Amino acid sequence: MTTTPTAGNRAPTGRRTSTRTPTADSPPRAGAPAGIDVPALGRLLDGRWWQLRRASRDLALAEDMQKIEGLPTPEHRERTMHQTRLLVERGQPNRGFPAAVGGGADPGGNLAGFEELVVADPSLQIKAGVQWGLFGSAVANLGTEEQHARLLPGIMDLTVPGCFAMTEIGHGSDVAALGTTATYHPQTEEFVIDTPVTAARKEYIGNAGQHGIAAVVFAQLISHGVNHGVHAFYVPIRERAEDGTLRFVPGVDGEDDGHKGGLNGVDNGRLWFDHVRIPRTNLLARYGEVAPDGTYSSPIASPGRRFFTTLSTLVQGRVSLSGACVVATKMALAIAIRYGTERRQFTTADEHTEQVLLDYGQHQRRLLPLLARSYAATFAHAELLERFHGVFSGEHDTDEDRQDLETLAAAAKPINSWLALEALQECREACGGAGYLAENRLTGLHADMDVYATFEGDNNVLLQLVGKRLLTDYGKEMAQVDIAGAVRWVADRAADMTLHRTPLRRTAQSIRDSGSRARSAGHLREADTQRELLEDRVEAMVEEIALALRPARKAPPTEAAALFNAHQHQLIEAARAHGELLQWEAFTAALPSVRDSVTREVLTTLRDLFGLTLIEKNLAWYLSEGRLSAQRAKTVTSYVDRLLGRLRPHARDLVDAFGYTPEHLRVPIASGAEEQRQTEARDYLRRRRAAGQEPISEKALRNG
Amino acid sequence: MTTTPTAGNRAPTGRRTSTRTPTADSPPRAGAPAGIDVPALGRLLDGRWWQLRRASRDLALAEDMQKIEGLPTPEHRERTMHQTRLLVERGQPNRGFPAAVGGGADPGGNLAGFEELVVADPSLQIKAGVQWGLFGSAVANLGTEEQHARLLPGIMDLTVPGCFAMTEIGHGSDVAALGTTATYHPQTEEFVIDTPVTAARKEYIGNAGQHGIAAVVFAQLISHGVNHGVHAFYVPIRERAEDGTLRFVPGVDGEDDGHKGGLNGVDNGRLWFDHVRIPRTNLLARYGEVAPDGTYSSPIASPGRRFFTTLSTLVQGRVSLSGACVVATKMALAIAIRYGTERRQFTTADEHTEQVLLDYGQHQRRLLPLLARSYAATFAHAELLERFHGVFSGEHDTDEDRQDLETLAAAAKPINSWLALEALQECREACGGAGYLAENRLTGLHADMDVYATFEGDNNVLLQLVGKRLLTDYGKEMAQVDIAGAVRWVADRAADMTLHRTPLRRTAQSIRDSGSRARSAGHLREADTQRELLEDRVEAMVEEIALALRPARKAPPTEAAALFNAHQHQLIEAARAHGELLQWEAFTAALPSVRDSVTREVLTTLRDLFGLTLIEKNLAWYLSEGRLSAQRAKTVTSYVDRLLGRLRPHARDLVDAFGYTPEHLRVPIASGAEEQRQTEARDYLRRRRAAGQEPISEKALRNG
Repeated sequence: MTTTPTAGNRAPTGRRTSTRTPTADSPPRAGAPAGIDVPALGRLLDGRWWQLRRASRDLALAEDMQKIEGLPTPEHRERTMHQTRLLVERGQPNRGFPAAVGGGADPGGNLAGFEELVVADPSLQIKAGVQWGLFGSAVANLGTEEQHARLLPGIMDLTVPGCFAMTEIGHGSDVAALGTTATYHPQTEEFVIDTPVTAARKEYIGNAGQHGIAAVVFAQLISHGVNHGVHAFYVPIRERAEDGTLRFVPGVDGEDDGHKGGLNGVDNGRLWFDHVRIPRTNLLARYGEVAPDGTYSSPIASPGRRFFTTLSTLVQGRVSLSGACVVATKMALAIAIRYGTERRQFTTADEHTEQVLLDYGQHQRRLLPLLARSYAATFAHAELLERFHGVFSGEHDTDEDRQDLETLAAAAKPINSWLALEALQECREACGGAGYLAENRLTGLHADMDVYATFEGDNNVLLQLVGKRLLTDYGKEMAQVDIAGAVRWVADRAADMTLHRTPLRRTAQSIRDSGSRARSAGHLREADTQRELLEDRVEAMVEEIALALRPARKAPPTEAAALFNAHQHQLIEAARAHGELLQWEAFTAALPSVRDSVTREVLTTLRDLFGLTLIEKNLAWYLSEGRLSAQRAKTVTSYVDRLLGRLRPHARDLVDAFGYTPEHLRVPIASGAEEQRQTEARDYLRRRRAAGQEPISEKALRNG
Repeated sequence: MTTTPTAGNRAPTGRRTSTRTPTADSPPRAGAPAGIDVPALGRLLDGRWWQLRRASRDLALAEDMQKIEGLPTPEHRERTMHQTRLLVERGQPNRGFPAAVGGGADPGGNLAGFEELVVADPSLQIKAGVQWGLFGSAVANLGTEEQHARLLPGIMDLTVPGCFAMTEIGHGSDVAALGTTATYHPQTEEFVIDTPVTAARKEYIGNAGQHGIAAVVFAQLISHGVNHGVHAFYVPIRERAEDGTLRFVPGVDGEDDGHKGGLNGVDNGRLWFDHVRIPRTNLLARYGEVAPDGTYSSPIASPGRRFFTTLSTLVQGRVSLSGACVVATKMALAIAIRYGTERRQFTTADEHTEQVLLDYGQHQRRLLPLLARSYAATFAHAELLERFHGVFSGEHDTDEDRQDLETLAAAAKPINSWLALEALQECREACGGAGYLAENRLTGLHADMDVYATFEGDNNVLLQLVGKRLLTDYGKEMAQVDIAGAVRWVADRAADMTLHRTPLRRTAQSIRDSGSRARSAGHLREADTQRELLEDRVEAMVEEIALALRPARKAPPTEAAALFNAHQHQLIEAARAHGELLQWEAFTAALPSVRDSVTREVLTTLRDLFGLTLIEKNLAWYLSEGRLSAQRAKTVTSYVDRLLGRLRPHARDLVDAFGYTPEHLRVPIASGAEEQRQTEARDYLRRRRAAGQEPISEKALRNG
């Protein structure tokens, strides 16, 4: 490492309340609300592994770790490879590996640090993720102890840059249908890896374009004419030629994916195999082994369960990408909200003072609900990371724990990756032309984070998985009810349906609300009301889909498929609602741990904004299902407006608590430069007016 | 031009119905719906200037006109400059200029062609737009005939690449507050152009980074101590040095904006002026002149009206950007829908046949409403272009025509630029990993089109302008009512409010609807119902805001500003609803001109999808305002689902009608390659099964 970070592990600026000069923001007013405890809040947000998180964030303070926007792809790739080597020098990647091979056996801490690499360059996060999170983790999770000892050291110290070769041109989401084959030959005790058709070529593989010399290749394991399903194989792919350049080993070939929408520091590419022979011992054999004679054995009897256990190692990627998206979201908001509290445009009440952007109603509407979502996502991600640590450290590693973790990650990754893209786009537009300059990083981050929505599990496919789990759970719940209970349940439900279908409940609510918007708004602020509304929607949606799908059980396949397809959109929406509810729960659960009363109050207001904007977004559902009266529905929006006004004075502190200083962000519009320019302009105009040098306006002349 | 387009002016493929092989899509079924008339529809979509539009689109068939994704910025800039020169060779830019200087005096046809340059490279569109649409148009629209003769030839033939130097670091949206000054000195009969403070530096100026040698500079015109407001001045900025390189003339300085989020073929930069002297005759003098002695005169007495007349020349930019966004939207959908009808993933009913993406309910939900919006935007843009042509050709050029044109353009640009970004993002995600490869162009187009949301008028600022116009019109309407009428109006309104506040109307509707979803859905399909619902919302929103803002008229400035600010978001939403209504009207108005009955029926279904998804998006409003009953609201979504199913078989034809062939799109995933790969894979598997070489699956062995 050629330069040294200077701010290692320090807390965000140690002030209790804002020390900004009044010109930076709305001038302080009499009765201005008390400030929040920024350092304590920052500590809370950074969570259990806050030191590792901050140390990793601070890596971005070193110039050679920083992304250079607009760097041509070849240079960007070399720079990222160099940065990845610097990570090895710092020992960072070892943290997640088993103690037996010198690792830190700290899976949660490892991911917390890994996520923050986005601050330096998302390409670095993904390059490191390919090497250690995918390639290395596959060996660690799917390999035996012998394989760990043999293969992991070179992976950990980057002497063996490698690939995670799962996806094919023809099959991305449908991994079970991969076309690559690994056929066992007992005569030579070798597997023959083969790509039978173009559609079976490995595609979008990180490190395959240029740097990878080995790959974990996912292929159909065939022995004695039986296909045992998808397994992982360790396959050398490149060797160093006499002239020092890397070239494919015989039988392996590939292509560079070339320029991408972003992440151009990562060399993605295609790989294919023409009867490539590897030793029997290169099958990563934790969940399936082939004896020298070709006899297959596995500790997991069911091929289906075995497949899903193999795939479950992918969950680490989803967890960490989800966290990386939260980091990018917070960076976007830190940039746009700082700029929004400095940038002025148009005079409103006072002809000499232009109004700060964030004082405009529309600007608050654009940015503050995103700020609330970023907090909810942060707290929910902390819970997800704890659960991941529990499973992968072995502390809480039952089948049920694993399944829950997978479902939670499958809900979090889509929600947070879409949040990041939405926040980056809205923030870029909220910064106007300045937001489009690469130096202000919002466009580059958007380009880089874009693919997070479809890799490591396509967002829609993942949400569908979550939806299916919700249906399964619903089915189990129903199955546990005895016959009498079932009858009672149907009867209850019928009553409930009636209640929701007729305007009964709505009418009652209308009467209760009438003439008292304040009381009604107060009611919406109660956590129990928000929870009830959010839960109610998820449950009712799942129930509605479950009932609609009932005939599918006894229908012919085509009809059953059509019926499911007709409800696919609804199922995905239910899964999203479920994920949002989890975020609301996590935000709410975090509130009691805030000791400072002002901070707690502001965070509660932010939680309310999160809850109410969720309800507002789905207001049509609450209205048409009779959950909210028209009267109360109208109070939702007016109450959201009130919350925006209350949060406005704290907006700057709320993003400062993220701990992304101007040195981390390194963007001109969040550096204070805008304020300096404005001060210069204001002083000039003031001097000119004082000296009587201000030209008279023609308009004033005419009116006078 | 080194290569020759080969498909000039030809119509889209001349088939009546799809000639695609059955494998490309769902297999044809008995009773499959009849196809639409693709060539005739293509002709309708390309509108009045269809020949010019197609000729310009076909420019992209020449290799040297095409964007190379991932090209480093310096090379991209030179390539774009070269392409701009090729446009001169073709005579394209002259079309919009006055006949007196050899122009074609065809403003509408000029823009139609200009918009299609996006197909080649959006950087080319913007580079050409800076030169001829902004720099050249400013001279044409703000200059005198003498100035036309003196300045336009060099602009038209590109011997004088130039800048439109309006925006400053400190003021973008608020043009009236620009800080650059142009002070007249009668002694030398010169204006002195000066940048008094950093905030007054010109910023984001196209051609300023590298190629521009002159600029139209917007500055406060000051003569004899009076500021006559913002005027445009023609200022030489660079000269060729002895070594052949361009350098700033004395007094002018600047900086390159460097890498941007996109459009990197355009060299944006900053410019500033240190007491730069230009001759009096370089004030573009159509709307304001300074006599040698410094006496100012103008054909427009009111400084306010003069300012807005000057700015109204900007409308051309907004109109053409709006049209360019429609082009980008159609390209995105042509790519994603073609891929969606070829790409398969997961088997559903039949274990050997994977399902085409566009047969998934969620995929239809993601893409088909965007397709409906692209059609609505196309028809609405055709109307806008007609109106633009009317004003700028002088055929219909009253003050009212100009104001209407400005309002329409201010509504269209935001709606269409956001549509393009949404479509490009959704299409990129819908194409999965392939969508992220630069070769498939979706990410590059998103990056390029991103800035369309904030340049040439920030979208939110423009919509606010539209909102204010709606309020003004509402005020005028009210003012024209006599006293008795006013009383009656208030009384009517009170009754109306009661009707909407109480569940009266809703209840009546519930009763009418009960038990008859079909009838209710049929009702929603009626154009009159859709129009009524869409109009009603705009009118009610405007009225509500107008009433809420009433106290502002008599309030002190601070309170008035606060009151307006509290309704800013609502006003912008009303403007958006107004713009969407205009698009719905344009779509509906285009239907009778479709002669082929099947095509008309499909387009009517598409229009219904557009109308109903607008209503669905705002369902909460319709419910809480009592415009729709809960019962009927539920039919909206189920009816949308039904429309998606009906449109699915026509999706491919509907994008083919856009006229973007694989040669125009030049992306691998819309080239048929995907289908070839699948055919290869299917044939391989079929052969293997037939030869008995298919391994038995372990699962089947266990189950058997």
